[in-house]
Amino acid sequence: MAPGDAGEPVGLAKTMSGRLYGVGVGPGDPELMTLKAVRILAEAPVIAYPAPDAGDSSARAIAARFIPAGRTEIAIRVPMRPGKMPTEIYDSAAEEIATHLDAGRDVAVLCEGDPFFYGSFMYLHDRLAGRFACTVVPGVTSLTACAAASGKPLVRRDDVLAVLPAILPDAELERRLLQADAAVIMKVGRHGRRVRSLLDRLSLASSSTYVAHASRPEERVLPVADLGKLETPYFSMILVSKGEAA
Amino acid sequence: MAPGDAGEPVGLAKTMSGRLYGVGVGPGDPELMTLKAVRILAEAPVIAYPAPDAGDSSARAIAARFIPAGRTEIAIRVPMRPGKMPTEIYDSAAEEIATHLDAGRDVAVLCEGDPFFYGSFMYLHDRLAGRFACTVVPGVTSLTACAAASGKPLVRRDDVLAVLPAILPDAELERRLLQADAAVIMKVGRHGRRVRSLLDRLSLASSSTYVAHASRPEERVLPVADLGKLETPYFSMILVSKGEAA
Repeated sequence: MAPGDAGEPVGLAKTMSGRLYGVGVGPGDPELMTLKAVRILAEAPVIAYPAPDAGDSSARAIAARFIPAGRTEIAIRVPMRPGKMPTEIYDSAAEEIATHLDAGRDVAVLCEGDPFFYGSFMYLHDRLAGRFACTVVPGVTSLTACAAASGKPLVRRDDVLAVLPAILPDAELERRLLQADAAVIMKVGRHGRRVRSLLDRLSLASSSTYVAHASRPEERVLPVADLGKLETPYFSMILVSKGEAA
Repeated sequence: MAPGDAGEPVGLAKTMSGRLYGVGVGPGDPELMTLKAVRILAEAPVIAYPAPDAGDSSARAIAARFIPAGRTEIAIRVPMRPGKMPTEIYDSAAEEIATHLDAGRDVAVLCEGDPFFYGSFMYLHDRLAGRFACTVVPGVTSLTACAAASGKPLVRRDDVLAVLPAILPDAELERRLLQADAAVIMKVGRHGRRVRSLLDRLSLASSSTYVAHASRPEERVLPVADLGKLETPYFSMILVSKGEAA
């Protein structure tokens, strides 16, 4: 049967599919959500979010006050094991979301920070963006939330900024730190002491600031030189700024 | 006279000073402003913003609908001459702002994108943050707004991201592009053709996307290979993403 003939309304069915939204909810303070994120949460009938094995979703907690009662919610439970990609979990979540989209319901996927900046939304995007209309709503990243908390400008004029995961080996961190005007070392976690030693050795500790949980009530800002034996959580950063006031 | 004696109420005067706010208004779409930015604009009696020599301020245009009538407004008129730092203009603007802060009035300084991410707010911060209480409200940067517009994730998991001003010499751009997993070339402007040739030569053109005026009605998204002889404005970016879907 040719398209346009009686029977399956191919074109119509396609235009009636729901839209997938990747919604950045920002770094933690609900007031750092955008007006657009708030509007989309007021409108979307289905809301999905990453969540730990057991317990509450951090992304949902940020957005909680803007999620109307009675919405369909999908918690995507991803075990927190750094380095492991739970492919089956995203396959299955994508199929659950696709069922709603096929039925014409928009789905908003909540993402801490920004969906395309180290966000887990991209695993759903990989699986669904080819099949459904998709809009990404950018959010405030932890990068600039940490800079705001530190009280120091991050990059100026023609500065080069390097964004470096703390898991990189010392030699690579060193090379990149020395080449950039400013650097952000992300996801410090269990690498705290190693990174601190490296910054000491490179004489960068005095121009480095540690920030954990930026914009949240438990926010912590410390010069790296004062870190001591403090345990550094996964969601913490070290900002290295060589720039001078002008 | 010692502090605490009759006369100048030193401590009191200090606590009565206004607070300086650096308010990120995001990349262009007013709906990408944060709730916090909107609240501060509703409250601050004095609102300052950068503006060109003649004509309207782009930062003010983004926030216009949230600026109540009758506020004191300070347009900081900075000539658009790349590379030149108009020190006297910022000195004078800082003094005008300080007069309001000294009188106990809060001042909100509007910044496109984020105040500490290549923002001109830092020139005022340099001059005023030592003298007055200061709060920076982070905003959505053009970085993630461009990624959202491009429809492609920017950085994944342990990717290294390099943020590179287009003004850097070819050899330096080349070295840094080859070393990073993803790169953002900022402020393309008059460097458009040179950067495009470089990406061609490095076989990176096919994984690069050009975005101008992200989130604005005039937004433009093109594969770099299709740029042709298009004039590239100052506020445009090229996103280079070598990451693969997983």
